[in-house]
Amino acid sequence: MSPVFRFSELAVKMQPSPIRELFRMTQQPGMISFAGGLPDPAAFPVGPFADCADVLSRDGRQVLQYGASEGYPPLREILLEMMAERLGYEVAADELLITSGSQQAVDLVARALLDPGDVVVIEAPAYPGTIHCLRNAGARFATIPCDADGMRVELLPEIVERTEATTGRRPKLIYSVPDFSNPSGACLSSDRRKQLIELAGKLEIPVFEDDPYGKLRYSGEALANLKRLAGRAPHVVYASSFSKVLAPGVRVAWTVAAPELVRSMVLMRQGEDLCTSTVTQALVAEYCRRGFLENHMGHILEVYSTKCHAMQRALEQYLPPGSASWTEPEGGFFFWLELAEGSSRELFDRAVAERVAFVPGPAFYPDTDEQVGEVHTGDSFARLCFTFADHEAIDEGCRRLGRVLNV
Amino acid sequence: MSPVFRFSELAVKMQPSPIRELFRMTQQPGMISFAGGLPDPAAFPVGPFADCADVLSRDGRQVLQYGASEGYPPLREILLEMMAERLGYEVAADELLITSGSQQAVDLVARALLDPGDVVVIEAPAYPGTIHCLRNAGARFATIPCDADGMRVELLPEIVERTEATTGRRPKLIYSVPDFSNPSGACLSSDRRKQLIELAGKLEIPVFEDDPYGKLRYSGEALANLKRLAGRAPHVVYASSFSKVLAPGVRVAWTVAAPELVRSMVLMRQGEDLCTSTVTQALVAEYCRRGFLENHMGHILEVYSTKCHAMQRALEQYLPPGSASWTEPEGGFFFWLELAEGSSRELFDRAVAERVAFVPGPAFYPDTDEQVGEVHTGDSFARLCFTFADHEAIDEGCRRLGRVLNV
Repeated sequence: MSPVFRFSELAVKMQPSPIRELFRMTQQPGMISFAGGLPDPAAFPVGPFADCADVLSRDGRQVLQYGASEGYPPLREILLEMMAERLGYEVAADELLITSGSQQAVDLVARALLDPGDVVVIEAPAYPGTIHCLRNAGARFATIPCDADGMRVELLPEIVERTEATTGRRPKLIYSVPDFSNPSGACLSSDRRKQLIELAGKLEIPVFEDDPYGKLRYSGEALANLKRLAGRAPHVVYASSFSKVLAPGVRVAWTVAAPELVRSMVLMRQGEDLCTSTVTQALVAEYCRRGFLENHMGHILEVYSTKCHAMQRALEQYLPPGSASWTEPEGGFFFWLELAEGSSRELFDRAVAERVAFVPGPAFYPDTDEQVGEVHTGDSFARLCFTFADHEAIDEGCRRLGRVLNV
Repeated sequence: MSPVFRFSELAVKMQPSPIRELFRMTQQPGMISFAGGLPDPAAFPVGPFADCADVLSRDGRQVLQYGASEGYPPLREILLEMMAERLGYEVAADELLITSGSQQAVDLVARALLDPGDVVVIEAPAYPGTIHCLRNAGARFATIPCDADGMRVELLPEIVERTEATTGRRPKLIYSVPDFSNPSGACLSSDRRKQLIELAGKLEIPVFEDDPYGKLRYSGEALANLKRLAGRAPHVVYASSFSKVLAPGVRVAWTVAAPELVRSMVLMRQGEDLCTSTVTQALVAEYCRRGFLENHMGHILEVYSTKCHAMQRALEQYLPPGSASWTEPEGGFFFWLELAEGSSRELFDRAVAERVAFVPGPAFYPDTDEQVGEVHTGDSFARLCFTFADHEAIDEGCRRLGRVLNV
């Protein structure tokens, strides 16, 4: 056998992830991290969730077996009911798919729809996991800038036209987190929601509505989901998840989409992971069935809104006046700071030396050489997660950040 | 919005799966199914597994949070120990990855290594989930025929040479289930194992050793895994799973591979599903930690070997002499029948009418237009799973099959 055999010679196609390196740095001792977008472990419903484990004895023979790729029937029933309420119409069984996190929903849609080199219109800034996932499917990106009201939808026709002119390809997908965007915290305004649905329909480009945070609103009025506004119109794909409202460790999420797309996603996942764990689906179904989720929502809304206000106060108190600007989010997990000057990557290095971490803005934009058309980057921005750290850490972390910005 | 918007117009790339249609047919009332490759639900360790749920209270704050993409640390420790024994060397931490079923391991390796149009050398017949998964990654197939001693390894150099000559591409991967192949039940002989490792090394093509059934040997002597024979040589990638020895519903499997390949798989999965459920990993770790797995192995070896003998006897008793030939498997889940005449698809239709189901041979071969070089198909074969049906169903199902073959 050849002693020089190396996988690096075999076109292993992945590049090192800057985000991964960054998170490694945030795990140093004494570090206060606002970097990871993690729920508060102290708020996990450990007792009630563990109580639900009697479903493992009761329904063990079903629960331990392979499950349908579409999902575990009792959980599907619960989700169909939940979706009828959230989306305002009776979602049909063939419009629903349970996935292993909503990350997998993006992955399956991307693999079902995209060919290498295809273009996705993505709000910028956007969740890095989505960028990474679409990149793995061979996508290039047309970035559409955001403001306080979310994606600037009015630019869409021009961006699509320019993409077609320069690449010869019509974009295959539009990606957005309309409620409490990760990272910006912004919500897409009502008018823009309607405009997006109408324009995407005319342009015949499906919209992926990623909604992990929609139920985590701490103030202001709820806005109707894109999928609620679009109803059964097939060009809006909806995804949500139990990760932020219950626990990410269960890896249970779901998608509502046109039956033909759901069928394609099912076929794709049969080559990917067959099905989501029936064990965790049964635990989540039991948790919902007993009414625990509703109680828990009240609890975490209180925990997270208090933390959100605490970070707002701490940032006001400690950050040097004029050094950064931001809007207190009405929900979700994140503050999105715009620095008055300097690069957020340089700020990150100085902050880590002071034992406080965040995610620098460029992580939320595709690499410049992956973008087609106008290129956007986020070097003057920083994302701070307020849900993971405890109150003391929120206060002390912002104090340290203020010190770093004062240098 | 356009009323004519259809995903079918958007190059949804998936084709209907014949296997999926087939399994739908096997779910008719009164059907005895030898089709699905499912464990016996009556043999699931429901009580002991449910007992392990106290880990959800004890370690809830960790278990409900996002986990590392590499896997849950306590389960990783257990697997490193298990692998040291099975593979005969100290597997390093950066050589191990926990996946959501070993289906995901094939998927991640394929996505990390293959470009669309690349060729994979695959034993024929082979597990349809692997064919489907590789197809999703854009692969074409060079099929290498099998006999009673597994893949005919001596044909490998010629097949690789011919593939390079006709496609201009060196195959990127060789796929095999050396122990109790799905579907053929055959084991790759010791000599061929050594030859495969040597040839693959010389040819510089990695070998994926898929080992879901290796521990399910009912008779004969155990053969060393390819990965044990190859040791740390980077061109053998090993995957195994808890699906067949504990329960598929947990979706927990693992891979041992060169660190650079593991890193690529981790990066790929960070865009795919982030991590395997920490909830199920913790349950599985607790199950192993308490010594339940060892006890359970003894139990299922007895259950499955008894069922295997039962099907052997029933086939001998009911199948018309000379209508089919087969070898009683020494382990695994399957009988692989070669029909003396006629097509297994036609036999399937007649069998379903008599309320007995199996999987026709062609499901275990890539479509003919996906194959490069010599084309192999399996129309004279049928796969029968003996683990799922109970004893009465095994007997009655073989009786019905005998009746169908008598027509």
